[in-house]
Amino acid sequence: MVRMVQHKQTTFEIISVGNELLIGKVVNTNASWLAKRITEMGGFVRRITDVRDDLSEISSAVKEALRRGTEWIITSGGLGPTFDDMTLNGVAKAIKRSLKLNRQAYQMILEKYKEMFERGILKSLEITPERRKMAELPAGAVPLRNRVGTAPGVLIKFGRQRIACLPGVPAELMDIFENELSPIIRKSIKQVRVVEATVIARGVVESALAPAIKDVMSKYPSVYIKSHPKGRESGVSIIELHLTATTPSQEKVEEEVGRAVQELKEKIAALGGTAEQ
Amino acid sequence: MVRMVQHKQTTFEIISVGNELLIGKVVNTNASWLAKRITEMGGFVRRITDVRDDLSEISSAVKEALRRGTEWIITSGGLGPTFDDMTLNGVAKAIKRSLKLNRQAYQMILEKYKEMFERGILKSLEITPERRKMAELPAGAVPLRNRVGTAPGVLIKFGRQRIACLPGVPAELMDIFENELSPIIRKSIKQVRVVEATVIARGVVESALAPAIKDVMSKYPSVYIKSHPKGRESGVSIIELHLTATTPSQEKVEEEVGRAVQELKEKIAALGGTAEQ
Repeated sequence: MVRMVQHKQTTFEIISVGNELLIGKVVNTNASWLAKRITEMGGFVRRITDVRDDLSEISSAVKEALRRGTEWIITSGGLGPTFDDMTLNGVAKAIKRSLKLNRQAYQMILEKYKEMFERGILKSLEITPERRKMAELPAGAVPLRNRVGTAPGVLIKFGRQRIACLPGVPAELMDIFENELSPIIRKSIKQVRVVEATVIARGVVESALAPAIKDVMSKYPSVYIKSHPKGRESGVSIIELHLTATTPSQEKVEEEVGRAVQELKEKIAALGGTAEQ
Repeated sequence: MVRMVQHKQTTFEIISVGNELLIGKVVNTNASWLAKRITEMGGFVRRITDVRDDLSEISSAVKEALRRGTEWIITSGGLGPTFDDMTLNGVAKAIKRSLKLNRQAYQMILEKYKEMFERGILKSLEITPERRKMAELPAGAVPLRNRVGTAPGVLIKFGRQRIACLPGVPAELMDIFENELSPIIRKSIKQVRVVEATVIARGVVESALAPAIKDVMSKYPSVYIKSHPKGRESGVSIIELHLTATTPSQEKVEEEVGRAVQELKEKIAALGGTAEQ
């Protein structure tokens, strides 16, 4: 029944690593930010998985995503210097590669520490095992420059699949994604466009609206409509209808979405409700 | 290296269903709210998975969690009347049971519609297929009363494992969890307590702090310390250290966490930083 043109789109999975997510201390805004950006670029995020700072959990999650044939796996978190930052270890285990000191990554980290030392933030320039650890990448990986923090991002080719590892600090994750990763992702994405529209229906309950949604979707098979009940305002039920269509030919679909919106509005009125866009 | 006493705790997984999560339109606050409540009750959330409104994706996610031996699987979203609300279908498929009209659930829904009809919110009392759909539960399931919305929650016993399905509307999810589900969960949880503490370290970078954390953790094996870099304030690096200990004997562990906090503070001072709790 779902009419997403999934098979045509490049598939993505996000794996977020960190105990803080599993104890409810932190809301996973990294995953939703990434999902939004990837969707805007025309990618299809099929799954988001949050796992603990646990080597076998991380490695299993990556292996499962690879086995599903997902084209891009993006991890967030676990790239730092502490013992429980073990994402690269988990990824290496999943793809059966060893961790090796990466010269380019080492150079990036060294530059960061020199800069911090010169600004007086760092007391010593000593390269401790903890600092060196951030430059130990799975064999064959490429580091992605981190302009905000210390630990570089990591990009790994695994056959036709790609694994990108980003830090968990949101500003660092966004910096690396926007400046280093998104140009590479963009090239790999089959050119498709997403057209969206939102209709707010007032005064009709969701169960009454359901057949109308079904009707409009069967008439416009490229349009997908999802209803989000938003509760009631002084006894009047409010439902947000979100329309999306993904396509290689934008114009035709924009027209289809426009017509679907029009019909939805008419149906809402016929049910005794009011609609606004 | 991770010293969580995982094997002693009752394990949970959260599966959140909804395209809105995978396109980044909605941040998954339901999952973090559930994770927080479960952790407070002494449960161990091992994984959170977000999947699309897609029958085979939902069913796969549930099957995988069951195969991992997780004791409680809690789903959120996809219980409503529209065609793309297919969580119960996915769960039924995963456990190879059929969907059947549940009398008790049907009665709950009928009461809701009568109430809405009397208050003028609903125009017709007709039980359409969409309304009936919300009362079709996997065979052997028990409905959980929803005081806020229409669709009841669902509880399913599957051997020694439990599957609970909650609606995606946050107020409904919270209502059913607090009033219907949490008393049942509480009984099933082995009595363990979580002790927490937070220390803010200023003026020490994470890589310098890493060996100190390692030291304190090896001295207090029941205490788990996680560092969260919080950026810089006028050039001074700020790191939040989050200590947790989970145990059946609270007093002893409270003392251990207290001592670990003390030692951490001393080490931060020795590294030239300042610490506050």
